[in-house]
Parts: sequence; C-alpha cells; structure tokens
Amino acid sequence: MPLSFRKVVIFGTGLIGGSFALALRRADAVAEVVGFGRSSATLKQAAKLGIIDRIGEDIADEVGDADLILLATPVAQMADIFVRIAPHLGANTLITDGGSTKSDVVAVARANLGDRIAQFVPAHPIAGAEQSGPAAALEDLYQGKRVVLTPLPENSTESLIRVCGAWEACGAVISQLTPEEHDAVFAAVSHLPHLLSFALVHDIAQRDNSEQLLSFAASGFRDFTRIAASSPEMWRDICMANREALLREVKLYADELYVLYQALENSDASRLEEIFQLSSDVRGNWNQQ
Amino acid sequence: MPLSFRKVVIFGTGLIGGSFALALRRADAVAEVVGFGRSSATLKQAAKLGIIDRIGEDIADEVGDADLILLATPVAQMADIFVRIAPHLGANTLITDGGSTKSDVVAVARANLGDRIAQFVPAHPIAGAEQSGPAAALEDLYQGKRVVLTPLPENSTESLIRVCGAWEACGAVISQLTPEEHDAVFAAVSHLPHLLSFALVHDIAQRDNSEQLLSFAASGFRDFTRIAASSPEMWRDICMANREALLREVKLYADELYVLYQALENSDASRLEEIFQLSSDVRGNWNQQ
Repeated sequence: MPLSFRKVVIFGTGLIGGSFALALRRADAVAEVVGFGRSSATLKQAAKLGIIDRIGEDIADEVGDADLILLATPVAQMADIFVRIAPHLGANTLITDGGSTKSDVVAVARANLGDRIAQFVPAHPIAGAEQSGPAAALEDLYQGKRVVLTPLPENSTESLIRVCGAWEACGAVISQLTPEEHDAVFAAVSHLPHLLSFALVHDIAQRDNSEQLLSFAASGFRDFTRIAASSPEMWRDICMANREALLREVKLYADELYVLYQALENSDASRLEEIFQLSSDVRGNWNQQ
Repeated sequence: MPLSFRKVVIFGTGLIGGSFALALRRADAVAEVVGFGRSSATLKQAAKLGIIDRIGEDIADEVGDADLILLATPVAQMADIFVRIAPHLGANTLITDGGSTKSDVVAVARANLGDRIAQFVPAHPIAGAEQSGPAAALEDLYQGKRVVLTPLPENSTESLIRVCGAWEACGAVISQLTPEEHDAVFAAVSHLPHLLSFALVHDIAQRDNSEQLLSFAASGFRDFTRIAASSPEMWRDICMANREALLREVKLYADELYVLYQALENSDASRLEEIFQLSSDVRGNWNQQ
C-alpha cells in the first residue's frame, strides 16, 4: 500500500506549503488538506487554487486527528505555532517544517513541544523561487530537489520513515545531517553568498554615481546580485537564526579576500592566476544536485 | 550612402573579433575582412566559418590600405600588435579595440603608435559569453549591447564618427567615458564581482569538506559563482591591468562587509534589514541595459 495521509495540516500556504500540498495531491498521498495562516486573503487564495480543502478555524479542533503537520511559515513564527499546537497534538500526529535554518527551529520545538518532541522531524527543502505566495506554488517544485532532514535522537524510525516518505512523495531526494551540520553547511553555501551579494549592491547603491555604475553593469553583475533582490525580512531572520555559523563564514571569507588583496597589492600575477585557476576548475566541474 | 569599410583587418578572430566581422557583414558594411592571430588553427576555422575572407600573411602588406583595424586579442598582446602595425599604418587607417580595460591599452598605444595615436579610438564592447573562439562568434552578439568608447583628445571628430559607426553597424548602443572613468566604473561593477566570486569558490574549495559543501549548494550559489568559472588568464590580466582601481574597490567592499559583520555580531537585526532592504530595492528596480 502506498504511503498516504488522511489529513495534513499546513501552517503557511505560500510557495513552500502550497507546493507541498499540491505535490502530495498529485501523488495521491493525501485525502484532506487543512490550511492555517496569518492572512485570510492568502488562505482564501490557497483554497480557490485547490491547494487546501478547507481553511482551519480552530487549532484545537484540527491538529488532534491530523496525520502530519507542516510548518511552512517564516522561521520566526514557528515558536508561536509550536506553543499553540502542543496541547492538542494527537499521539500519532507527526510534524515537519520547511525552515531554512535548523538549530533554532529545533531549539524552539524543544522549548515548546515538551515530551512531544519525538513527533517533530525537522526538514529543509532546498527549493526556492523568486516568487512567493500561493499563486507561486507548483506541484513539481520539489521534483528532483534535495530535502535535508535533520532528525532528532528522540525520533522513532517509524516517524522518520513516514516524514521522509511525505517529502519523497513530493518528488524530493532526501539527505540527512544533524541540525548543527546543516547550519554550518548552509552558512557557507547559501547564507554567506546572500550576505556578500547584498553587500555589493549596498556598497554601490550608497555612492553618488550609483546610477551611472548600474547603467554599465552587465550579465556578470546581474547573476552575482540576483540573490540581493531576495526578501529583506526573510534574510534578516536567517542571518540572525544562524548568526554564529555565519559570523565564522564572514571571517573566513574576509581572510580569503585579504589574500587576494595582498596578491594584487604585490602585483603577484601568478598567485592571482593560481587562485582563479582553482576556482574556475572547481566551479566548472561542479554539477548542481 | 550608408557607412561602409572597404577593408577591415582583425587581430584575434574569436568571440569578440569574429562577432564584429559577422555583424559588419550582416549590415553590408564591409567588403573584405582579413584576419591575423597567433593560432593558425583558429584562423583557418574563422575562414571556414565565413568570418574572414583571408588569413593575413604579412602585416606590412595588409594594414596600409585597411580602413579599420580591430584589436580583439587579450589585452596583454596588444602592445606587441601596436609595435608591429605602427610603421605600416595608412594615413586613413583607423584602429579600435575590444579590451576590457582602457587606461592600460591607451598607455601602450601611446607608447607604440607615436604620432599615429590620433588614429586609435579605444572601445570596450560590454558583451561576453561563456564560450570563446570563432565557433562562439555570433552576428548579433552586439545587438542592443553597450559599447563604451573612450576617445582620446587627439581623435578627430571624423575618426570618432567612423569608429562609432562601425560599432553601431554591429547593432551596439554607444556610450562615452574617459579611459579613467571607464576603468573606475568597471572595477566596481565587473572586476570586483568577479574577484569576489572567485574568492568564494576558492574559500570553499580549500576546505576538507568541500565536496559535501558543494553537494548542498543550490541556485543562489550557482548564479553567484557563475563568473568564477571564467578564464583565469583573462581575469589575471584584467586585475593586473586595472590594479589600482580594483584595490580601491576591494577596500571599499571590505569596509562594507565589516559593517555587516558588526551588525551581525551586535545582533542588530534592524540594521541588517535596513541594508538588505536598500539592496533589494535597488537590485529589484535595476533594469539591465
């Protein structure tokens, strides 16, 4: 019998939550999807688009008999949701999330779920898009994309298999890391590049001749700064949530930049070429998962 | 009568030079194109692809009656070409180039062209591509793209109009800057981002867990580091040629990065958001030329 869920409750029915619901529906893996959220307009839109079957009215009524709850809100809102769902969780209700940072989400889950912590299997789907909201949701957003699970010691094998199965039903490829490993890895390959890209645009935007500079910027600048158009609130929260790992990364990067600065200051062309060659080889051979 | 050139001589028949020739041909603006280059295989390929009519044998024979010469080699090779063409230039032969830096090209032109310097109208076409070589040349590479001319005080209005017309015949949109302005602008919007992108990949490539890190990198990393796959030799030369402006840019950027580091260290979420917000607004409103 294929894995299926009778009732799935989704907090946050935008790109991440909406795509999860659509993907489970396409896989015929869910009977009923109930949505909660802060914006009734968003919830109505999600219902109209067929993402959810019903808008939830009362958390107490909905989470007790849910098979699976997805928290797909900004990470900063998750503590409050854990507080509100904790007293009503059924014995068999599993929880997963879509947050971009994991240590902080695990910490607020531990603080608020109490002895229900075993029911939470944290996840980070590596799938974003420029757009957000229910209208941006896609049934194939997770198809072939990585979802990183960061299981807790308390999770039972059965819980892990069920949550893993839900994400796999969405088409995702599952990886496992500890929450700390996850945050260290993403500080390096995602949070740092975002910070660096924001910094370049901010550097240029503050200048008297910023309009002239931007008028001559071309495709290299375009790609380098694409992520600087990302949501300021979301990235403020991610940076704060993963502050320590990101501070370490910025330091390492500043050291690397100083090496390049010195090579340039010393007119050390061969050192520059050596650095560029390694980068070019590694980037050229990298195949995105 | 539309602008046309009886004979155009191109040094370097790859992406930049080859596309120039193809675009002039499409515009019916040239009768004969003669190619020179260091690699006979490249020249033969350019001839086979219809980019050039003939492979040049002897510089002395070819440049005297040329209407226009394009230097489309790496910048580091241009000094030698100026030396070799200088004694043979006709009184009406104009020269332009496709170099990514301008002060250094102007300096070697001045050093080697002597009183023929008025015949050289420096240019930088803002059009690159991942590929290089004659096979990558496109007749519409310059269509709608910017070409920055950095005229010299010695250039006559007529020379300027003719060289401008050649690039416009290729479909380009012309801007004018002084060589120094050009190099300052491109240090900020092109050379700095390349250096920063190389630095990130090098930073990650040197780590023990670089393979793990790269396996989790996604679309943000992909776009940020696309330019880190660029030619190491070319970027070594550009960095060295525009060393002083680039050193200034790296310093300004390091200051900016320190502002972000401090905001993060002080857990100053509102300062982070303020910086991200300005960047996101500016990048979101930027329309690439």
